[in-house]
This record gives sequence, C-alpha cells and structure tokens, in this order.
Amino acid sequence: MHYFDNSATTQPLDSVMATVQQVAQTYYGNPSSLHPLGTQSKELLTSARRQISEILRVSPEEVYFTSSGTESNNWVLQGVVDELIIIHPNRRQVIVSAVEHPSIFEQIPVLEAKGLEVLIAPVNGEGVLDLEALKGLLSDQVLLLTHLAVNNEVGSIQPLEAVSQLLKNYPHIVWHVDGVQATTTQLQLLFDERIDCLSLSGHKFHALRGTGLLVLKERVSTRPFLYGGGQERGYRSGTEALPTIAGTARALRVAWEGQDALKERLASYRQRIVDYLSKLQWEIYGGNSTSEHIVCAGLAPVPGEVLVHALAEHQVLVSTTSACSSRRQQFHSTLTSMQVPEHLSASAIRISMGQLTSQEDVDQLLKALSAVTEQLR
Amino acid sequence: MHYFDNSATTQPLDSVMATVQQVAQTYYGNPSSLHPLGTQSKELLTSARRQISEILRVSPEEVYFTSSGTESNNWVLQGVVDELIIIHPNRRQVIVSAVEHPSIFEQIPVLEAKGLEVLIAPVNGEGVLDLEALKGLLSDQVLLLTHLAVNNEVGSIQPLEAVSQLLKNYPHIVWHVDGVQATTTQLQLLFDERIDCLSLSGHKFHALRGTGLLVLKERVSTRPFLYGGGQERGYRSGTEALPTIAGTARALRVAWEGQDALKERLASYRQRIVDYLSKLQWEIYGGNSTSEHIVCAGLAPVPGEVLVHALAEHQVLVSTTSACSSRRQQFHSTLTSMQVPEHLSASAIRISMGQLTSQEDVDQLLKALSAVTEQLR
Repeated sequence: MHYFDNSATTQPLDSVMATVQQVAQTYYGNPSSLHPLGTQSKELLTSARRQISEILRVSPEEVYFTSSGTESNNWVLQGVVDELIIIHPNRRQVIVSAVEHPSIFEQIPVLEAKGLEVLIAPVNGEGVLDLEALKGLLSDQVLLLTHLAVNNEVGSIQPLEAVSQLLKNYPHIVWHVDGVQATTTQLQLLFDERIDCLSLSGHKFHALRGTGLLVLKERVSTRPFLYGGGQERGYRSGTEALPTIAGTARALRVAWEGQDALKERLASYRQRIVDYLSKLQWEIYGGNSTSEHIVCAGLAPVPGEVLVHALAEHQVLVSTTSACSSRRQQFHSTLTSMQVPEHLSASAIRISMGQLTSQEDVDQLLKALSAVTEQLR
Repeated sequence: MHYFDNSATTQPLDSVMATVQQVAQTYYGNPSSLHPLGTQSKELLTSARRQISEILRVSPEEVYFTSSGTESNNWVLQGVVDELIIIHPNRRQVIVSAVEHPSIFEQIPVLEAKGLEVLIAPVNGEGVLDLEALKGLLSDQVLLLTHLAVNNEVGSIQPLEAVSQLLKNYPHIVWHVDGVQATTTQLQLLFDERIDCLSLSGHKFHALRGTGLLVLKERVSTRPFLYGGGQERGYRSGTEALPTIAGTARALRVAWEGQDALKERLASYRQRIVDYLSKLQWEIYGGNSTSEHIVCAGLAPVPGEVLVHALAEHQVLVSTTSACSSRRQQFHSTLTSMQVPEHLSASAIRISMGQLTSQEDVDQLLKALSAVTEQLR
C-alpha cells in the first residue's frame, strides 16, 4: 500500500510506539499522586513538556497538552476569546482567514452569538493571505487574528513574517496560528515570537492520535477550558495522557531533527509529481508558496471521489482535500476561496506525504496516476 | 512494587497494549478518509462503539468518545446544561451531590455565572446520598441532577435504584451519573434505563489514559462540545483517537466479563484489609455500602502524606484520597461532607485495588501497614 494521506493522519513511528508502550507499562502512576511512581510520572511529564518547549522556543509553562488540534483551536476561540471580551469590552471583532480548517470555521457562529463581528481575510489565487486586504482589516476594534500557517487542503504557506510585521502596530491583537500542517516541513515558521497562541496535533507528525498541543504565551489570558483536578496549571483538567504525551514529545524531536533532510526529499518528490501531473494535463492548485508535503490537483470533470477510488485500486491512497470534511461532502472551502470554480474544485484530490513516504511510493503513485488518467479522461 | 492507587489510574493490560499497538500501526487511516484504509478505520471505530454500547445496554448512537472522564463531566455540565437552559427557561436549579469529583465541583461557579442555582444534596456519615433530603430538593425547578455512582475517595456506592424511583415523578430532570469509579466492581449499577448521561474513563479500567466515554441518551439535547470536522455525530469534533479507543473497548469487555470474579476476589481482599486495620486501631471510613476496590482509612494524628511516604518505603503505593486534589493540598471534600472532623480526615489515605491486585500485594500491604503503624503511632 502506498499512503499519500499524511495530512489526514500519519502512521506512528516505531520509535514513538516504543515510547508509548514503555511509558504506559512502566510509568502508570498518576502524576498527581504523591507516591514515587506518581512523582516519576510527573517528572516524565515535565520532561516531555520541556523538550517540546525547547523545540518551539517557548517556556515550558506556555505548553499545554490537549486531545487534538481541534481542541486547541476550540480552546483559543472560546477560552481565550471569552477573556478578551472581558478585558476589552469595546473591541468586538475577530479576523479569520478565508482558508481555515473546519475547527475554526465551525466556531464562527459561536463567536457571532457572543456579539462579535467576524471579518474574513481573503486569499489570492494561490491560497495565500492577501496582505493588503489584511492590513485594511486590522484596527483598534480587533481582539484576535486567527489563521493557519500551512493550509490543509492546498498546502499554501502563509507569510507569517509579513503578518508579524503588520501586527507590530497592534500589540493588543492576540495572534493565533494553527500550525497543524506546518510540522512536516515548515516548523521554523512557528518560532516567531509575536505568535500568541499556537495549535499543533501529534498525529500529523507520526505520534498517536489523541494528543494535541496548545502554546499559550504567558501574556495571554484564558479561562479554564476543562474544569476539574487542576492539571495543566488549572486550565485543562483531566488525568494527563502520559503515554501518548511522551510519544508526542519524541515524535516532535524526530520531526525537528530530520526536518531539513525531509524538506529536501519531499521537495524533490513534489517536483516529480507536479511535473508528471502537468504532463498528464491535470489542473494543479497552489503556487510557489506551497508546502513540500502537499499536492492538490484535479482532472475535471472526473469527481475527486472517483479519482480516490480509482487510485486505491492501484494501492495508492489519497484523499479528496481535507479528511475532516470529505465524508460530509462539504464544498471545497479553500479552493472556493481561491476563486476556483465549482466544476474544477469538485475534481480536486490531495496527495500528502510524510516521513515514511519513499521513492518507491512516488514511483507507484506516478504509475497509478498515469493509468487512472488514461482510464477516466 | 505493590500498587494500591488504582482509583487514580490503572496499569494497562497486556491485551489492551496489544490492541493499541496493532490498531496504531495497521489502522492508521483517518476514519473520515474515503480510501480503503479510511473505511477500515471507520469500521473499526463503529465496531468499538457497538461493543461498548452492548455492554452498557444503550444504542451505539448514544456512545461518544471523549478524552477523559473530566471532559465528559464538563460536556454535560456545559454542553447539555446550555441546551436545558434554552429548553426550560423557567427552570433554574441544578442538584449536585456533596461528594463529587473536582471535575463536577469546580464547575459550580460556571453554572452560577449562568444564573443557575446549585443545590447540594447531602450525604450520611457513610458518604451515601440522604434520600429524604434529595427528595426534598427535587422539584419542577430542577434542570439536572448530577452525582457519582461510586465515590472516588471513600468508595461509597450510591443508591441508584432508589434515585431512579424518586425521579419517576420528575421526567423532565436530566440525570447525569459519573460512573468513573463504578467500572471496577459495580458496572451493573450503570445499566438503569432512567440514566440520561453517563461519564466513564478508560484508564480507570486498565485502558490507556486519554480516552473517556460519554453516554448521552437520544432524548437528551446538547450543543456541540468541540466544533470542527463533524466527528462523533457533529458533537465532538477532532480526529478520533482510534488506537486508544479500540484499547478502551477491549478493556471494557475484559472488565465486564471478569467483573463477578473480580468483585468476589476484591471483596475478600477488602475484608482482610479492613479487619487488619481495625486490629491496628485505624479509623475506617465508609460503611456497608462501599465498593470492593476502595478502603479509606486514617491513623490520626499522622498526616496522610506521611503515611503515603512511609508505606512507599515498604514498596506499597497508596494515595491521600483523590489523586486529582492531592498535589493541591485541598480539603478532603468527601470526608468533610461525611462530617468527619478535619483532625481525622487529614490523616486519611485511600487504598484502591484493580484487576492486577494480587494476594501477594495484599500480604505486603498488611506487613507494611503493621510496620508503619508501629513506627508512626
């Protein structure tokens, strides 16, 4: 099987599984318990948090463990925004980019129900934030700006450095970056000190599903997201999922240490795929500023779903843009925001790679693309 | 090491670890993806949900996967209560028992901030709900009653059948049961059809930390708890943590199939421990209606923390009542509600057993108790 759906979820690394197994069976004490096994578990938790904080260049106190990137995004748009409303009662706007994951978009009605006005920051034809338009939206009225670092459907990389510059004039605006798709090849994008809140998801970088991260800088206020025993400095209660947390710390280390080499490798794979698809006369979305691990392309008028199933017959697994919306048959939000007409976007598939993607996988992908193109065009 | 802190967290079973490992490495597709690996993952998720629903005697559509018992409790007191406020604008009361876990207690200010009145249902000297008092609190004003099935500090088993009878006159009251401590030996308590919402936690029955369950009967309305890709029927978005979910389903099967035998075994262990502690003239809390897996006892004026450390020197790990509050040095809420004076409750420790507790563990516990008593009295 040749797996090209790494933006949906990745296969856990053997080394991560070994960590999960060892921690589950050896450090099964509750970090809140006072006995030695509890203390050892607490130390392991502290160590995982410290390792992650060092890679992300924040302080350990700014790293919170959640259950998913979705939870992290919900925490920010609810827990952080609720505090912002209290701190700045006269500011009533939130800026959301036009190419967000559903875990941001689906919260817009929640924000509006609180009396907030949600402004949508548009993107250009490559899915990249329109900086002039964003500049026009920034004002004293804005509480929070939220956007992803790397788009999950097309792979567009957002100009974080330029956004950071724009925000210099608005120190009161809380800047939330959804970095979930940036961990494969664009981790360094997330090190900008101006970022106030950062969401990450372990299973996008070969850790197990069920652990997310939220970085909340100390300057940001939040109400607790889960109330209870006071874990995570009182803001996210619940017994810590130590095995998968330790696995996530290990996976992030591996991802960071191997990032430069992976970036180079996936860039060459991506170029081969894009060149091949061009030759086959597929439509390719995104442009120069696209992450090395994602190719979004279509063969209109063949529906994306038909392409997914046809490729699967050749043992090649791809997805119809975002997995989170594909079973719900939603419109292709990123492509729509990029002004791609519906008859084209309905054919789009997402080919997404990760650490385990090999040259052989790419060879098989190209063969399958060739066969499927001939069969369905 | 002799582990008697199973009410804080349990060691995962080898069979559960095998399931987690196999699912993580074989079914790494996202259940939302349309390709065959996604479909297989979706089928596995459906099967885990069905197995759990059969054990709990509810329909699969009523089982939701969360990240912890704490999250399940937060969901009910926020997501379900928010809907109840809309449905019944003239009802403004919520009843909470006096012996709840912090994940319920800490939400009382949140309920009050919404204009709700929180009534505390008192318990008797054994930590069991005072049914006459509860009857007096029930009225047309009440939206929701929440209490645990088995107390986490003392082990008191609540009279669910009697509560169910009382609620017959109040069909509009939503009944939430926190069943987290009931899964070791009292699972059958949770099968009452009148229960509307039920919280469970995988790591209390030898699954991995990071997976909880919430049963929400179809008759109960809720707003989404996490917004996003629409997983869990649209109410709890986020990529499903399939490996630990499958492990939790397996652990619940093992727990249910072995429950009768375990109950008998732990009852005999508990009797030995209680008899021995009585002989050593310890104070023992709880009475006849106490779960087989918990013994709460103290040796005043020795502080509980000192007892925990002294027993640890004999390789026996126990806890100072609930792990969730022990590092925060909270007051002993359950014992306080049972009218146990502070000079006694400050000495209380909790000895809690699970599936892996052996006769040999109990032998060592008794030896350690004897030595520690002699040393510290």
